Amino acid sequence: MGARRARQAKGAKSVACCPYYHEAIELIGKRWTGAIVGVLLNAPAEGEGGLRFSEIAQAVPELSDRLLSERMKELEARGVVERTVLSGPPVHVEYRLTDMGRALQPALSELRDWARQWLDETDDEPTAAPARTTAATH
Amino acid sequence: MGARRARQAKGAKSVACCPYYHEAIELIGKRWTGAIVGVLLNAPAEGEGGLRFSEIAQAVPELSDRLLSERMKELEARGVVERTVLSGPPVHVEYRLTDMGRALQPALSELRDWARQWLDETDDEPTAAPARTTAATH
Repeated sequence: MGARRARQAKGAKSVACCPYYHEAIELIGKRWTGAIVGVLLNAPAEGEGGLRFSEIAQAVPELSDRLLSERMKELEARGVVERTVLSGPPVHVEYRLTDMGRALQPALSELRDWARQWLDETDDEPTAAPARTTAATH
Repeated sequence: MGARRARQAKGAKSVACCPYYHEAIELIGKRWTGAIVGVLLNAPAEGEGGLRFSEIAQAVPELSDRLLSERMKELEARGVVERTVLSGPPVHVEYRLTDMGRALQPALSELRDWARQWLDETDDEPTAAPARTTAATH
């Protein structure tokens, strides 16, 4: 086995050993999902600590109600979000993170720190050197 | 200002104060990007420490060459990946993470830990309670 093939095998193994990593990235990375979970993580833990649909919608104003509704159903189906109907009048629904959802806090917090350091080009943090442009082969 | 409006404002602020968080999620969460960065993070730091296109392709076999090529160009344009042409013969190209790319390690490591704990339902880790299904209002 040549060095190149050995490296290929090693690379393949590093992915294969973590079959859920890709699933987690796809879950959180789905358009708007990370923003929604971020809003729920930052929800004040007052009283029951949930947020209404309209509160989440207001916190992520770029998102249509239809798409937000779809995302909340997906997060509920995955066990990340819990939906509770509070008896009225008026009846209303609140959403909060499950233990599984709250456990995303360290990962999203690290990603937020990375974003602040590397995507905010207006501050004094180091920025990446421009990518070298080279020949068009690969 | 009522309590609900106050909570809305607070929720909105928590998103508004991190304009780059959403950008980071969309960057990493784009289909296959997280997997590619994960492969590059796990690349052995031998010699120049880069991976060839074919090595990345082999490590993420579900991804077509066309889409991988597109993702690599995006990551290079964002400053996450650096592309180097090594003179031959035969000439070949290697990809490696920039400092900006390597700085994603803590976030992706936390996400991997979360995935192992919460998405692997075959082990003994706690899993989320089934989401309550309730009335269809929100």
